[in-house]
Amino acid sequence: MRFTERLHKKVMPIWKKSHDHPFVQGIGHGTLDQDKFRFYMIQDYLFLIDYAKLFGIGAIKANDLKTMGQFAKLLDATLNEEMALHREYAKKFGILEAELENAQASPITLAYSHYMLHVGQNGSLAELVASLLPCMWSYSEIGKELSKLNGALSHEFYGEWVQMYSSEEFGELAAWLIGLLDELAEGKLEAELSRLEEIFVNTSRYEYMFWDMSYHQSMWPTE
Amino acid sequence: MRFTERLHKKVMPIWKKSHDHPFVQGIGHGTLDQDKFRFYMIQDYLFLIDYAKLFGIGAIKANDLKTMGQFAKLLDATLNEEMALHREYAKKFGILEAELENAQASPITLAYSHYMLHVGQNGSLAELVASLLPCMWSYSEIGKELSKLNGALSHEFYGEWVQMYSSEEFGELAAWLIGLLDELAEGKLEAELSRLEEIFVNTSRYEYMFWDMSYHQSMWPTE
Amino acid sequence: MRFTERLHKKVMPIWKKSHDHPFVQGIGHGTLDQDKFRFYMIQDYLFLIDYAKLFGIGAIKANDLKTMGQFAKLLDATLNEEMALHREYAKKFGILEAELENAQASPITLAYSHYMLHVGQNGSLAELVASLLPCMWSYSEIGKELSKLNGALSHEFYGEWVQMYSSEEFGELAAWLIGLLDELAEGKLEAELSRLEEIFVNTSRYEYMFWDMSYHQSMWPTE
Amino acid sequence: MRFTERLHKKVMPIWKKSHDHPFVQGIGHGTLDQDKFRFYMIQDYLFLIDYAKLFGIGAIKANDLKTMGQFAKLLDATLNEEMALHREYAKKFGILEAELENAQASPITLAYSHYMLHVGQNGSLAELVASLLPCMWSYSEIGKELSKLNGALSHEFYGEWVQMYSSEEFGELAAWLIGLLDELAEGKLEAELSRLEEIFVNTSRYEYMFWDMSYHQSMWPTE
Repeated sequence: MRFTERLHKKVMPIWKKSHDHPFVQGIGHGTLDQDKFRFYMIQDYLFLIDYAKLFGIGAIKANDLKTMGQFAKLLDATLNEEMALHREYAKKFGILEAELENAQASPITLAYSHYMLHVGQNGSLAELVASLLPCMWSYSEIGKELSKLNGALSHEFYGEWVQMYSSEEFGELAAWLIGLLDELAEGKLEAELSRLEEIFVNTSRYEYMFWDMSYHQSMWPTE
Repeated sequence: MRFTERLHKKVMPIWKKSHDHPFVQGIGHGTLDQDKFRFYMIQDYLFLIDYAKLFGIGAIKANDLKTMGQFAKLLDATLNEEMALHREYAKKFGILEAELENAQASPITLAYSHYMLHVGQNGSLAELVASLLPCMWSYSEIGKELSKLNGALSHEFYGEWVQMYSSEEFGELAAWLIGLLDELAEGKLEAELSRLEEIFVNTSRYEYMFWDMSYHQSMWPTE
Repeated sequence: MRFTERLHKKVMPIWKKSHDHPFVQGIGHGTLDQDKFRFYMIQDYLFLIDYAKLFGIGAIKANDLKTMGQFAKLLDATLNEEMALHREYAKKFGILEAELENAQASPITLAYSHYMLHVGQNGSLAELVASLLPCMWSYSEIGKELSKLNGALSHEFYGEWVQMYSSEEFGELAAWLIGLLDELAEGKLEAELSRLEEIFVNTSRYEYMFWDMSYHQSMWPTE
Repeated sequence: MRFTERLHKKVMPIWKKSHDHPFVQGIGHGTLDQDKFRFYMIQDYLFLIDYAKLFGIGAIKANDLKTMGQFAKLLDATLNEEMALHREYAKKFGILEAELENAQASPITLAYSHYMLHVGQNGSLAELVASLLPCMWSYSEIGKELSKLNGALSHEFYGEWVQMYSSEEFGELAAWLIGLLDELAEGKLEAELSRLEEIFVNTSRYEYMFWDMSYHQSMWPTE
């Protein structure tokens, strides 16, 4: 069994909860309250800025030119292309650039991104990849699943989202990272694998909490 | 106005919520459910291990031997003395060492510690201190306040806790960090001060959430 | 006076020594021993891999999307384009890819790159830029100066090198970083400026030593 | 064969060159020019400040409380005790504290310390230990060897130095790190071991260069 198969099996119950979450289902069936999605878009935008930094860390931690180059390409594409697509898409929901720029991160957004950022900076390349993979991989799975729902791909508001994450291009990205983690895990001791699993589980959990936070539009309880 | 006075004023409403929280009040009045405190102790123990690392980062980021030496002393005292006191105190509540060692961090414990760890590793010494100060400072304030309550210092279970955080020694530690942050903030531009304030506010918020999580014994919602 | 003018003035004597160094002059006059240049190319290639990582750190340390995006673009261009040009150019001197890949870094190559890497990872964005700027800026100056020498741009072996570093594109890159450092230095206290100056001086010194090491083909004295 | 035996065997020729170096021999025979030693003391003092930071990184990278605590103790002892001993010893050679504080690091001092600092911050705990071990281990060997020379331990000026590094306490410190590296290397793949070896070789080389730099009192060639 490849190491990522072991990981996938391990987090299945968590990912299942994400797939079944009313937020995710609401995107697929086109019934999601737009206010909830607007909240999500803003937090996702802030999240993406920090997520991109993980690709920068990947380029620094990798020891071969090929992997460094791939992370560099990903960092560049995220910051110089994907962010613009997000800003464009946000307009559809009446979210202006100024709102994105001045938005405040929620406790779960900060929690999720900073967990990965510290794990990535302090740990090995394998630990970095284990931390950022659940987001990519589960989005690809969700995208593909939702795309099978009637009208999901052509929905006036959420169709674009389903298209993006069910795309082959996005799937290939996830596949590359899956392959990379399998490579990096090869021959590693169980203690190390189990540390990678712990990270993978934790970011899978935060991934679920991100959906749930968006659904409830949860900001700081102190305000 | 010293910079830390500005910070204190800014977070007053958040800290007030922490002081008034049933968990904190329950310690002071000796009425807190021991199960809740047991949960807190375990999470606090895990938190402290990461919190100690911030002192290590302080020693690395400081540019003068004196500050380096102070962080080194703090790191050593935390890991080689304070942790043992915590283990000892935990026994009073029937928490064995093995339980502490095998415990799993909650989402808020990880969120709070990793926010500080990344801010500390990626930012300046001032940013590190701004991130770790609310914990120290607000504990010192809470300790002193609770110590005025009738019987709080001599309570069979929580008295020791109140003694620790109302102690002069602990107050001096907080005072040192307050002074250090004021020093580091001197002459800084408003953009930098406002970044420090943002960090200080965020860790004050996580500090509140830590009390609240303990009160509700909140672990991962995925399990 | 802009801060970078102050820096330029400060390192003038060091940069002058670099400009006048027989290695640099040898490139311009086309008289440099090819063995020396071959040594340089290999070390420069290894250096560039670490230098690229500094752009990755820049993307992580920057606080605004625009600067993050520029560092990301630079990282991508360096790893996915410039490295290939270097490999291509190296062939002209009979250096095969395998030789580049298996080459060992010299003490000065490691010293220079790791000084910047630690300063960049541990310090502020301004400190990162101060560390990597002398290489970029002085190469641009050297390129422009050498390009005025008779036949330098069309020299069979060294012409390509002179073209690359005297190009407008390369000059604009240096200009961008100069502007960025001036921006970052604005309003900073003298203690901080003087730390930036110290870094700028140190990497200017290592830059000189890199030329000198190449000229003498100096590897580890222990072998 | 334990992994550290493999390392020791590998660097034997380099360490032999260090042992035989006129600087080291000069300490043992009491014939070393005091000016050279004065230069060494100042550079060693600057070096030690950065070397101490590696212990701080050790406390951050370690995953168990015991190892964290040991690095914390070492960091504290170095900054709060050993540095004072160095300042005291320096007085014997007429070096005042102000001179130590205002001294400038040489190219090799910066090279050596920053190589370790980056390797430590960016890599694993094993890589950190591999980088800092040659200094500790070879000093312990040199100390013990020199202590056998007639009068070395009681020499008016260098006796104290020989005592410090031939002491049992110092030997135990080196032994602890040797044991730790063996533990960390257990079960690791050859690719990882060979990376550890590369680091160990590089810092052994810089260690030699540090002796040689001290002997020739080599500062920046640009000045």
